[in-house]
Amino acid sequence: MVIGGGAAGMSAASAARRVAPDLEVVVCEAGGFAAYGMCGIPYFLGGVVPRAESLLAYPPGEFRGQRGIDLRLNTRVDAIDARTRHVHLSGEGGTGPLGYDLLVVASGADPVRPPVPGLDQPRVFTIRSLDEAIKLRRLLDSGVVRRAIVVGAGYIGLETAEALVCAGIEVQVIEALPRVLGTVDEPIAELARDELERHARLRLGARLDAVREDADLAGRGLTAVVEGDEVGTDLVVVATGVRPATDLLIRAGARHLADRSVVVDESMRTSLPDVFAAGDCVALPHLVLGEPAWVPLGPAANKTGRVAGTVAAGGTASFAGVVGTAVVKVFDLEVARTGLGLGEARAAGLAAVATDLVSRSRAKYYPGSSPLHVRLVHTPDGRLLGGQLAGREGAAKRIDVLATALYARLTVADVAALDLSYAPPFAPVYDPVVAVAAKAARSVASTAGSASQPAASTMGGSS
Amino acid sequence: MVIGGGAAGMSAASAARRVAPDLEVVVCEAGGFAAYGMCGIPYFLGGVVPRAESLLAYPPGEFRGQRGIDLRLNTRVDAIDARTRHVHLSGEGGTGPLGYDLLVVASGADPVRPPVPGLDQPRVFTIRSLDEAIKLRRLLDSGVVRRAIVVGAGYIGLETAEALVCAGIEVQVIEALPRVLGTVDEPIAELARDELERHARLRLGARLDAVREDADLAGRGLTAVVEGDEVGTDLVVVATGVRPATDLLIRAGARHLADRSVVVDESMRTSLPDVFAAGDCVALPHLVLGEPAWVPLGPAANKTGRVAGTVAAGGTASFAGVVGTAVVKVFDLEVARTGLGLGEARAAGLAAVATDLVSRSRAKYYPGSSPLHVRLVHTPDGRLLGGQLAGREGAAKRIDVLATALYARLTVADVAALDLSYAPPFAPVYDPVVAVAAKAARSVASTAGSASQPAASTMGGSS
Repeated sequence: MVIGGGAAGMSAASAARRVAPDLEVVVCEAGGFAAYGMCGIPYFLGGVVPRAESLLAYPPGEFRGQRGIDLRLNTRVDAIDARTRHVHLSGEGGTGPLGYDLLVVASGADPVRPPVPGLDQPRVFTIRSLDEAIKLRRLLDSGVVRRAIVVGAGYIGLETAEALVCAGIEVQVIEALPRVLGTVDEPIAELARDELERHARLRLGARLDAVREDADLAGRGLTAVVEGDEVGTDLVVVATGVRPATDLLIRAGARHLADRSVVVDESMRTSLPDVFAAGDCVALPHLVLGEPAWVPLGPAANKTGRVAGTVAAGGTASFAGVVGTAVVKVFDLEVARTGLGLGEARAAGLAAVATDLVSRSRAKYYPGSSPLHVRLVHTPDGRLLGGQLAGREGAAKRIDVLATALYARLTVADVAALDLSYAPPFAPVYDPVVAVAAKAARSVASTAGSASQPAASTMGGSS
Repeated sequence: MVIGGGAAGMSAASAARRVAPDLEVVVCEAGGFAAYGMCGIPYFLGGVVPRAESLLAYPPGEFRGQRGIDLRLNTRVDAIDARTRHVHLSGEGGTGPLGYDLLVVASGADPVRPPVPGLDQPRVFTIRSLDEAIKLRRLLDSGVVRRAIVVGAGYIGLETAEALVCAGIEVQVIEALPRVLGTVDEPIAELARDELERHARLRLGARLDAVREDADLAGRGLTAVVEGDEVGTDLVVVATGVRPATDLLIRAGARHLADRSVVVDESMRTSLPDVFAAGDCVALPHLVLGEPAWVPLGPAANKTGRVAGTVAAGGTASFAGVVGTAVVKVFDLEVARTGLGLGEARAAGLAAVATDLVSRSRAKYYPGSSPLHVRLVHTPDGRLLGGQLAGREGAAKRIDVLATALYARLTVADVAALDLSYAPPFAPVYDPVVAVAAKAARSVASTAGSASQPAASTMGGSS
């Protein structure tokens, strides 16, 4: 059976069904929806995606019907007993013990709710489930929300701020840290900050102290206390990060990292017998760090769910690992990262330097060409450790060249030698990724006192 | 000294100057412009790029002034004598012999002019130089061109057709082969054909027999004879391909391939003493074929020019090779390719199969998401040989993941395991490249009778 009907859980269930058509596959999902695109929620909130149903990967009936999967919505699993191979259910799908032969736990991640008084108000939201998003969207559609406070300026905070601005709401973003987007280095994060500030108010280094009902508006408005200031608002969205939803697994005795993400092998087996785990609740091999790390993102959730379901059902599959690739749209800016940032690399004990370049998204003479900021993180001797890109276009998928290079353990000189596509509407003749790598390779060569690297110092180029 | 003021020649001159600031650097360029973006010419013709000067990588005075390069425009080199280290000049930059210590030949490629009577008419153009493009643009601006025939449906033919349509001209494209874009496989080429036919008339398998002055219009119109049909037109553009402009080098004794591209080593040395060559006139190591091949494209022209200039001036540099990456915009379609097509691979004696998939450019629920056609070419045991992509968006730079994978000699299973970026505005949760590679890896696994590859057969996914 499978715990969790998100991307990982439903991928596991579907894979198991394909490998072993006669296997009984039960999925218990605590919420009211399964197999939806969680990453699409901000776009549903903002109205870019008009209908919640659009986020469903498959029509609701498909699992029970065509796929023969016993999907039980609104059904919680309260405990796992790995010794006796039972889970304990409560909810619409049954109450009490249910036996299993093989278990895949895809319990995902839960939003972190900071210990701030008043977050239990009905107009305070965290956005981690479609159920909750539908409630919030209904509130937005009712027209009573003119002002909103978003707490947290990470991926979800920025996407939520954009969504609310898109819905015509005046937005203020509060972030306790002195910067936005902690997952990219400062120079790239500053571009995201500037872009955010074009559309919303931002208070950095500011904590939310409390949320109170606003007496003047008879319960229809809120007062947020931010560093002592009282700020009237109609809505608070808390987006202060997520943590592994692994209480069930850890109580059952599963081995885990300090951050409570659960340790699995390449087949997604936990330390518990016949218990697999997948998705946002597990630590995955990080190919740059060389050790497991918790990087909860959609593609790996789908892939690891599929591996867990395949192996649990008797097939063979394995998950190679991640390099930490992620991308976010911040209004009209694309921000992408892969591998390690400079701070992350140094925190991991690696000698790391950064090479920065501002190139362009297209040939400079081609209309729509816009600046593209690129950073490579590498060792002084040229090992590629990571990369970051930001720009109005051309950043999001260009990061994939560096993600591929990290998987293949290429050096910066290798990246400079790549034969990347060129035509004036799509890139400068020296693609920004090649150009920054050539610059990095020159710094490596001069550090090494060698002249065996590209010798040129500028990157004009024509064609 | 350097022969040719295009991308390769000027890169060589600039690199030589940087490596050896005291070296006398002479560049002889037969045309009236240097260091311009040849690939931008169609966009200048169509008016997307309003001014010819925009295509110049540097202001005209920069080379002679800041860079100390003796650039001689409108100066032809008529012969190379490698034994006595002399070239023979004619034109504005001098007439008669000129000695050199080291020579870089970046003579580029010449348009192929088919042996058709009447191609010497003033309204018949090939477009390989900015001089010629300026003449044609002047003709277009004069308003006398209402109808045009483009001969050839390769990259340049299609880009030229788009440019002319963009300029408000009724265009007919004539192609002798039964298909467009010979550099991509049929299924991808058909998408380009469909897109072309939305905007212009296309006659496949049709040869141009002759071009005649149209008597009725007193020399202001033309009659093209196409497979016996007389077609009135105001302009004929011949875009039937290019060939290496290597007469000088071959007459001087340089070793070359059957297609007349000149053979160089990794430092861009020809077989002639102290004579280097770079750019569209040389054969380059093709990393998938494992032997030199002639793939005349802009990025390699810039890079090989730089290597030639660096080494000629006493520095150290080398060129790793190409994998055959190219991209073309055909109206609203992006068409990209890298490595070998199925036919090319088989022609090279490789056991090759193709795996095709239609995916999407963004999450299916995200506005603007459009179909993305992907083909992987690989061996039955999973070695990646090439890839092709076509779609309204997201094809051009996505090919770079496959170009990187080819450089790194990844298998299709490796590509399926890549950690590529995901957010709903930029990709489905299984990126099209990962999805097609997973499909290819399953075909490899089932061919091998093994179950060690991804077992799943569909690629829904959610997140």
